[in-house]
Amino acid sequence: MVGGGRDAFIGAVHRHAIALDGQCELVAGALSSQAAKARISGRDLFLADDRNHGDWQSLLADELKRPAHERIDFVVIVTPNHVHFAVAQAFVEAGFHVVCDKPLVHTRAEADALVAAVKARGTVFGVTYNYSGYPMVRQARAMVRAGEIGEVRKVIVEYSQGWLATALEAGGNKQAGWRTDPAKSGAAGAIGDIGSHAENLIATVTGLEIERLCADLGALVPGRALDDDANLLLRFSNGARGVLVASQINTGLENDLRLRVAGTLGTLDWRQERPSELVHLPGDGPKRTLTRGAPWLHPSAQRASRLPAGHPEGFIEAFANVYAGVVADIRARLIGEPADPLAADYPRVEDGARGVRFIERTVASAASEAKWTAW
Amino acid sequence: MVGGGRDAFIGAVHRHAIALDGQCELVAGALSSQAAKARISGRDLFLADDRNHGDWQSLLADELKRPAHERIDFVVIVTPNHVHFAVAQAFVEAGFHVVCDKPLVHTRAEADALVAAVKARGTVFGVTYNYSGYPMVRQARAMVRAGEIGEVRKVIVEYSQGWLATALEAGGNKQAGWRTDPAKSGAAGAIGDIGSHAENLIATVTGLEIERLCADLGALVPGRALDDDANLLLRFSNGARGVLVASQINTGLENDLRLRVAGTLGTLDWRQERPSELVHLPGDGPKRTLTRGAPWLHPSAQRASRLPAGHPEGFIEAFANVYAGVVADIRARLIGEPADPLAADYPRVEDGARGVRFIERTVASAASEAKWTAW
Amino acid sequence: MVGGGRDAFIGAVHRHAIALDGQCELVAGALSSQAAKARISGRDLFLADDRNHGDWQSLLADELKRPAHERIDFVVIVTPNHVHFAVAQAFVEAGFHVVCDKPLVHTRAEADALVAAVKARGTVFGVTYNYSGYPMVRQARAMVRAGEIGEVRKVIVEYSQGWLATALEAGGNKQAGWRTDPAKSGAAGAIGDIGSHAENLIATVTGLEIERLCADLGALVPGRALDDDANLLLRFSNGARGVLVASQINTGLENDLRLRVAGTLGTLDWRQERPSELVHLPGDGPKRTLTRGAPWLHPSAQRASRLPAGHPEGFIEAFANVYAGVVADIRARLIGEPADPLAADYPRVEDGARGVRFIERTVASAASEAKWTAW
Amino acid sequence: MVGGGRDAFIGAVHRHAIALDGQCELVAGALSSQAAKARISGRDLFLADDRNHGDWQSLLADELKRPAHERIDFVVIVTPNHVHFAVAQAFVEAGFHVVCDKPLVHTRAEADALVAAVKARGTVFGVTYNYSGYPMVRQARAMVRAGEIGEVRKVIVEYSQGWLATALEAGGNKQAGWRTDPAKSGAAGAIGDIGSHAENLIATVTGLEIERLCADLGALVPGRALDDDANLLLRFSNGARGVLVASQINTGLENDLRLRVAGTLGTLDWRQERPSELVHLPGDGPKRTLTRGAPWLHPSAQRASRLPAGHPEGFIEAFANVYAGVVADIRARLIGEPADPLAADYPRVEDGARGVRFIERTVASAASEAKWTAW
Repeated sequence: MVGGGRDAFIGAVHRHAIALDGQCELVAGALSSQAAKARISGRDLFLADDRNHGDWQSLLADELKRPAHERIDFVVIVTPNHVHFAVAQAFVEAGFHVVCDKPLVHTRAEADALVAAVKARGTVFGVTYNYSGYPMVRQARAMVRAGEIGEVRKVIVEYSQGWLATALEAGGNKQAGWRTDPAKSGAAGAIGDIGSHAENLIATVTGLEIERLCADLGALVPGRALDDDANLLLRFSNGARGVLVASQINTGLENDLRLRVAGTLGTLDWRQERPSELVHLPGDGPKRTLTRGAPWLHPSAQRASRLPAGHPEGFIEAFANVYAGVVADIRARLIGEPADPLAADYPRVEDGARGVRFIERTVASAASEAKWTAW
Repeated sequence: MVGGGRDAFIGAVHRHAIALDGQCELVAGALSSQAAKARISGRDLFLADDRNHGDWQSLLADELKRPAHERIDFVVIVTPNHVHFAVAQAFVEAGFHVVCDKPLVHTRAEADALVAAVKARGTVFGVTYNYSGYPMVRQARAMVRAGEIGEVRKVIVEYSQGWLATALEAGGNKQAGWRTDPAKSGAAGAIGDIGSHAENLIATVTGLEIERLCADLGALVPGRALDDDANLLLRFSNGARGVLVASQINTGLENDLRLRVAGTLGTLDWRQERPSELVHLPGDGPKRTLTRGAPWLHPSAQRASRLPAGHPEGFIEAFANVYAGVVADIRARLIGEPADPLAADYPRVEDGARGVRFIERTVASAASEAKWTAW
Repeated sequence: MVGGGRDAFIGAVHRHAIALDGQCELVAGALSSQAAKARISGRDLFLADDRNHGDWQSLLADELKRPAHERIDFVVIVTPNHVHFAVAQAFVEAGFHVVCDKPLVHTRAEADALVAAVKARGTVFGVTYNYSGYPMVRQARAMVRAGEIGEVRKVIVEYSQGWLATALEAGGNKQAGWRTDPAKSGAAGAIGDIGSHAENLIATVTGLEIERLCADLGALVPGRALDDDANLLLRFSNGARGVLVASQINTGLENDLRLRVAGTLGTLDWRQERPSELVHLPGDGPKRTLTRGAPWLHPSAQRASRLPAGHPEGFIEAFANVYAGVVADIRARLIGEPADPLAADYPRVEDGARGVRFIERTVASAASEAKWTAW
Repeated sequence: MVGGGRDAFIGAVHRHAIALDGQCELVAGALSSQAAKARISGRDLFLADDRNHGDWQSLLADELKRPAHERIDFVVIVTPNHVHFAVAQAFVEAGFHVVCDKPLVHTRAEADALVAAVKARGTVFGVTYNYSGYPMVRQARAMVRAGEIGEVRKVIVEYSQGWLATALEAGGNKQAGWRTDPAKSGAAGAIGDIGSHAENLIATVTGLEIERLCADLGALVPGRALDDDANLLLRFSNGARGVLVASQINTGLENDLRLRVAGTLGTLDWRQERPSELVHLPGDGPKRTLTRGAPWLHPSAQRASRLPAGHPEGFIEAFANVYAGVVADIRARLIGEPADPLAADYPRVEDGARGVRFIERTVASAASEAKWTAW
């Protein structure tokens, strides 16, 4: 693991997700960009001293020195965004499988380079768009792809949070700090941090391609350099229309990601804060609420579930499903067989690259006086 | 009453609303543009033969012939939209108080003329933006105006229906027919029919002024001439951002009007399909759900309620609250006293005119390649 | 109308319900047991002086003096419970149709006498178990009766309020006063006031007969003479089990009446505070939420609805549906034709009598040390 | 671990819960009562061969042979209920810390013996009443204990499932089989399997003592020997009343455990299927919905949470919180310091024993013709 030391948020989530199924073990790390902090963080997690590194370069070098059967099976990159590219590129070039947090990198050039590298090396590369791991998101995807709601005509995705409604970064909050700092987050604030999840959710569930978009990005909290509120109109290549909202200044809201997809035959509605429910509104009968764990779900949703219906699963389980997909893909390669697509179900480097493009196009649109910016 | 005969929808709603409180009685009408249908509809409603007219001109002429104490106290206009202007103008000019359905008229010129006429004659003119009559909408208005959520920074209003997801108009459905016919609905479809409610809800609750807007209007059902799906980005004069969605092609949805207003101190959330609940998310404590009928509500919300908490009120009661406001204003004039603002609480001709401007600007924006269209 | 003057609660609800459809008009009354208050209340409601009486005996006598075509079509009894019997009996004996509030009377002897009188005179007698008028209650009834949830095995009905959680009666609250006074409410407090609705809801929806019951009645607010909290176990004649809760001391609750009926093939769930939704959980597919106004509802539910789906209806509409049933039955008799059962759909004197028996058996059980008290 | 091999349900849940925090590791087991199945199940879980036993006696003997620092820190007992006592007693007597599933044992005599043994040996003994581990259950407990809802007057707990609505046991379903077999489940069916959770939830949150109870147990699915539907009236020693429902025949329901506690100052409402929300209805203000992860929660609730608000946690996390409490208590003993009560927060052997008494008294009441059975 690179990044994820003391004070980090998402690193611990990755570790819970990795541990949950008892299939992987954290054995080596460079857990902070500050060597001393990296090492003390590693000791917190019972890393052996010789695999507890002060920087990622040492970790990589050390792994390469070890015989193949002692090496890590894959590396997890959970640093702030600006560090992703260098680490990911180096590990891919060295032939390691990678799991990287989102947004993947800062620029399309970096994204393209990474896609090319992964293709060239033939490695596994997962991007933790964790919301795609929820069973009911997979059920929605299966229903849309099978035509159960007909042709998609309208998509609304809203990702509203409230935690950046005040200038937390001014008070030294680390999570707020790097997310609102262009040097670390790139040209995008909320649109990168959570808008990228929204874009991925649309792509995952509908498979639609954005043809053009119109963005209004605002930095509504005084003094903030990056957007904390993003609102977009979307046009898809099949003629469908869309609205995408990503905002972190909605006082009192928690993590309110919602998706609504309306087709000619029905509408689907999903809300991350009640992840086990997928509402299906068919045109010819009453509203149906599909729930996780039911025997009538699509196999891709059923296998993403660990507990019987009514025994709530949550965020960590969805995260762990992304890891389970990556692990299934690595295992298939280890034994030289094609991966079962139901098992090796996870967002890939191309999804990450598309997300980078989405951010870039959004930032371009926000700076433009033209209504539409082409994809 | 002008309009509202057999096969009409909204006329019956007006009559329920008028009857509910036992304060008004329907005594005269021209209930259809077809004379025979008008008369048979009037007989359904126990109108006396001499006040049951075949056209609105006869109704007006007959009323003017009667002595003042026998005349109607006010006229209700519930025709399709394209008829509103002529009828409203004539009755106002003749000195009658008017209640007119929304959208008020088709053009800004008509709207300005009507505002001028009402001003000149000093009559009461209510516009049935009925959603403004819900007690919890009034509570939201009171809270925003009192600064309880701080400065407003973000507004999302979504009005999604599903009933026009198929080409009902092709099958002879009267309600679908006139709403999708430019000759009767004007240049706007969904944005006029329900988008106008959405605009009014923002204005009612927040008092914010739209400074510019960016609209994407679509006719997503093949063969339809007017928009059935509208998505807008809004900028308000105080710097707040907004998103407005009005769409009638969301298969399976009923009448899903929602409002979210996020301020620096808190967020309010209201949903028409559960009208008795107003969710308040303060920044410094847990979510509060205010409910209709509670003693701690603002007086304007309390007086808009007829039953104790937990005894559901609905659409007709909200509608009746608009009438109650009009009636209070007329009564005040009859007795020559200033109206109690808490009592004479209803949308006025100026609100209707602002709604017309909103529709006009939206249609202009939709036709423009520029991102922003000024208000 | 007898009762329902100033300070009364339910009388005004009846009047809204009567007015809503424009089919009935209040023309005569004895609106209070105090003559002066009765008359001033009548003037509030625009009653003519000669039909605005100081006591119900005068009202009855006056009506009998009038020619048949000038008489009231039916009388509405909305007094406190202890007055119901004398008034109802007198009007029935005089041949008038009656609508009476619940609980019908205080004793089984009174109830039996009233049933006999109605049978003998052949009059219409409605009891305002208003919750039976909700469209989705009628839908539940239709589904259970049609076997859509199989054989019923379990029924839970819970009616929890909070308004009597403090000794409001000690502070002079009139509504609390008569409900907690054995002289006016009889032997039952909460079990009579709201438990009777709960019993009726079970009977309406399931048609099951209670075979025996076990009751625990408590007066939990210090100083109260009648039960404010009632909990019952039920056994039905088909072997089904039940739980009935009626309680007015749940601080902060409003009017939380819920019904759950579980059968061999499915379960139904309904909640009065969200009356437009009926949840159906079939054993072989996902949860379905049926909503008022949908075309796939049973005709008895469809005709109980005035507005399209998504336009909330509430308590007054349900109340008005009971009146609509009574009016349909009276009309059928006036024209000498059999009533359409779908139209003449309302709780009758026998339902009221069964409710009286339920209260009596519950009070007997509460006083008994035996587990079961036979019906 | 004893029990929890292939085909078991709850053993896997325990393992997820143990793994989640990376603080414990499964190192030894006797995972089935059939030796071959035990061993193959152990291999599935990467147990070393010399710690993968065919029966629990071998596991115990082997552990005792090892030097202290190599021994397991505690044993987890997840067998069917009838095996709990022998295993638990043996491990406690041998000085091991124990985590045992519920219901603890079959008889009060066994429960008393176990309590005595734990007391005598001074070991840690946790019982996995896992619902007590939910953060919002702990918040409810803290609020009730602090008097925030005043004196408790009414408690309703309902635990309704649907999975035994048909005779699954007849079709060879293992989970249904042992739960409906008196030889394995004891005298209690649903009341033992899930009623025990309901009892524990009341005790955990309110601390009230049941003084007497009245039970109606039914085996509603034809051919079933044990209750699948249980309904109880409760009287608590402080005068409060209660209703407890535990039923497994509600077709279509999942795992619907709900608790409502009404006090003189407010009411609390919690539902397991939405575990992150605790509704608080104060008498003097609007409904409040407390959510997991908020900074204003009680420390006992805050520390039971791993993720920020809005990032759903579920069943496994609650389960893991019980383990975290056990581990904290074991750690405190290892270092010889008193345990932090906020950390060592878990249900103990005495809670398990009280649950056994509850089941015994319920079964006695069900067989009695007297209304009340003393505790």
